[in-house]
Amino acid sequence: MAGRVEAFRNQRTSLNKATLEGGTLVTKRFFNLDTRCYEAGVLDAKTKQMLGLAASLVLRCDDCITYHLIRIAEVGGTKEEIAEVLDIGLIVGGSITIPHIRRAHEVIAELFPGDE
Amino acid sequence: MAGRVEAFRNQRTSLNKATLEGGTLVTKRFFNLDTRCYEAGVLDAKTKQMLGLAASLVLRCDDCITYHLIRIAEVGGTKEEIAEVLDIGLIVGGSITIPHIRRAHEVIAELFPGDE
Amino acid sequence: MAGRVEAFRNQRTSLNKATLEGGTLVTKRFFNLDTRCYEAGVLDAKTKQMLGLAASLVLRCDDCITYHLIRIAEVGGTKEEIAEVLDIGLIVGGSITIPHIRRAHEVIAELFPGDE
Amino acid sequence: MAGRVEAFRNQRTSLNKATLEGGTLVTKRFFNLDTRCYEAGVLDAKTKQMLGLAASLVLRCDDCITYHLIRIAEVGGTKEEIAEVLDIGLIVGGSITIPHIRRAHEVIAELFPGDE
Amino acid sequence: MAGRVEAFRNQRTSLNKATLEGGTLVTKRFFNLDTRCYEAGVLDAKTKQMLGLAASLVLRCDDCITYHLIRIAEVGGTKEEIAEVLDIGLIVGGSITIPHIRRAHEVIAELFPGDE
Amino acid sequence: MAGRVEAFRNQRTSLNKATLEGGTLVTKRFFNLDTRCYEAGVLDAKTKQMLGLAASLVLRCDDCITYHLIRIAEVGGTKEEIAEVLDIGLIVGGSITIPHIRRAHEVIAELFPGDE
Repeated sequence: MAGRVEAFRNQRTSLNKATLEGGTLVTKRFFNLDTRCYEAGVLDAKTKQMLGLAASLVLRCDDCITYHLIRIAEVGGTKEEIAEVLDIGLIVGGSITIPHIRRAHEVIAELFPGDE
Repeated sequence: MAGRVEAFRNQRTSLNKATLEGGTLVTKRFFNLDTRCYEAGVLDAKTKQMLGLAASLVLRCDDCITYHLIRIAEVGGTKEEIAEVLDIGLIVGGSITIPHIRRAHEVIAELFPGDE
Repeated sequence: MAGRVEAFRNQRTSLNKATLEGGTLVTKRFFNLDTRCYEAGVLDAKTKQMLGLAASLVLRCDDCITYHLIRIAEVGGTKEEIAEVLDIGLIVGGSITIPHIRRAHEVIAELFPGDE
Repeated sequence: MAGRVEAFRNQRTSLNKATLEGGTLVTKRFFNLDTRCYEAGVLDAKTKQMLGLAASLVLRCDDCITYHLIRIAEVGGTKEEIAEVLDIGLIVGGSITIPHIRRAHEVIAELFPGDE
Repeated sequence: MAGRVEAFRNQRTSLNKATLEGGTLVTKRFFNLDTRCYEAGVLDAKTKQMLGLAASLVLRCDDCITYHLIRIAEVGGTKEEIAEVLDIGLIVGGSITIPHIRRAHEVIAELFPGDE
Repeated sequence: MAGRVEAFRNQRTSLNKATLEGGTLVTKRFFNLDTRCYEAGVLDAKTKQMLGLAASLVLRCDDCITYHLIRIAEVGGTKEEIAEVLDIGLIVGGSITIPHIRRAHEVIAELFPGDE
């Protein structure tokens, strides 16, 4: 499991490069807007990343879940806070989210190694 | 538009009663769990309601959106905070969420009448 | 609420007529296949309608839910059986299905008037 | 049924105004991008609107379907072309799209009155 | 392909352990409820597992599909019954379910080796 | 990455065979209908494949996306046309489609090697 986060980061960087090279001006602008909407505003960056995690969980996108977990850890979120975000996703989205929650815990274990 | 929030509350109360009467023990327990997961824990109640709103928006459920908007207003959330939650939903979920965001603004206008 | 089922039946018949008139051969064949897949085979008609209900609930389509509720009642299903089908949908699909379950109970009340 | 298209246009204009007033800079930029991506490029405007229709149908958004049907008619698309777009959505998205296809035919009947 | 079912069982057990350890009381209670709703009630266990399969197929969750296929085989369901459940999912959910149906047949081949 | 398209084709052929052998008459007829709806009619084959791509992208099915990319290339579609189809999917479906768009660009790179 070691390196799951690092592998995700490397692949994401490489594929984003290809996507932006192959994409149109609309693609590029959307990517900018996507970055911008998670910047601190009235809500702080951690809350926004948690909102992104909840949305990604109920839409069941593993890559998006991994990305927001990494970002939450980077801006100071804790394992306990993440667990409560996952609960909202589980209750709203139902048991169909469980396989994604299982995989999220693998990423969480790597992001918070001292907490195990 | 006046009374949209009140009408929603009344209909929800009435239908929940019928649902719990017609439902099984599993139904009742799920409803309890649904209430419980939004109670303040490591995350406060407002953050949890905003997570519920983001999840409801990307899953495009108008009743759920209305419910969380009402609850956010009740626990002290502002129009400006809601706007940033809706933006995360819009970017994650795409233009398909726009009709729901439009209808959300009708509810917001009623919940925050002094802000217009 | 009285007449909800009758109104649904009338509107569905009328719109299906327009849909088939405006549709292509592919549309017509799909409609035939849709009818055929609910006919008794290794599984009986009631089980198949319940499968259609579970699928419709987690995909959150009120018209489809109403249709399968009507059909289940027609082939001899009971309120208690329907309640257990709705529970599977609720657990698999989460709280986002609740508004649809609430509306389903309005249809159920009309389909099983003697059971109230 | 008469006036369905006109009513949709009026409500959409009015609610979009409220949405943009209540929205953030991210909201406004997304709306701009949404408009821009349907402008003729390598693909012509009609093809792009048909792509929007197919996407809206499988995601089952009636407002979005109505919008793209209106736009297709405005840029010269025919009832026969629309029927084939709806077929792709029906086959890809399944019978769960049928209630939306039924309602689409009500809009189509109003958009192409001479064709009845 | 041999061992697909066994590998699934092992990974599921291991990840569920991590999920419950990292999860909250809400998580644990949801998992209990999830187990409980498939227990025989008015409907028997096989019918409930088939309902879970239909719901999982239209929501397109491979892990959930595999789980319900295994459980159906355990409680005495046949390949022919499963084929009819998959058909309901295919018709309701459309061609987008086909990749999941293809993968389901790999699991079915392993669960019913004598039937090939 | 070389061989991604070939591997997909081989696996699809092999699994479709198993699916049709294990499937019912409904399954077989659906597969026929699925093929038929992409045949040139009022709309040409390329437009229909692009409609299938847009629908597959917003429903986020990698196998379906790969299939339609291959077919678009076979009937003469270009990288630039595909980029505009992906943009419609991105705007309609939101950032949740991005991981699928990234993977689509890997397939595109293999399908259009001379364009890099």
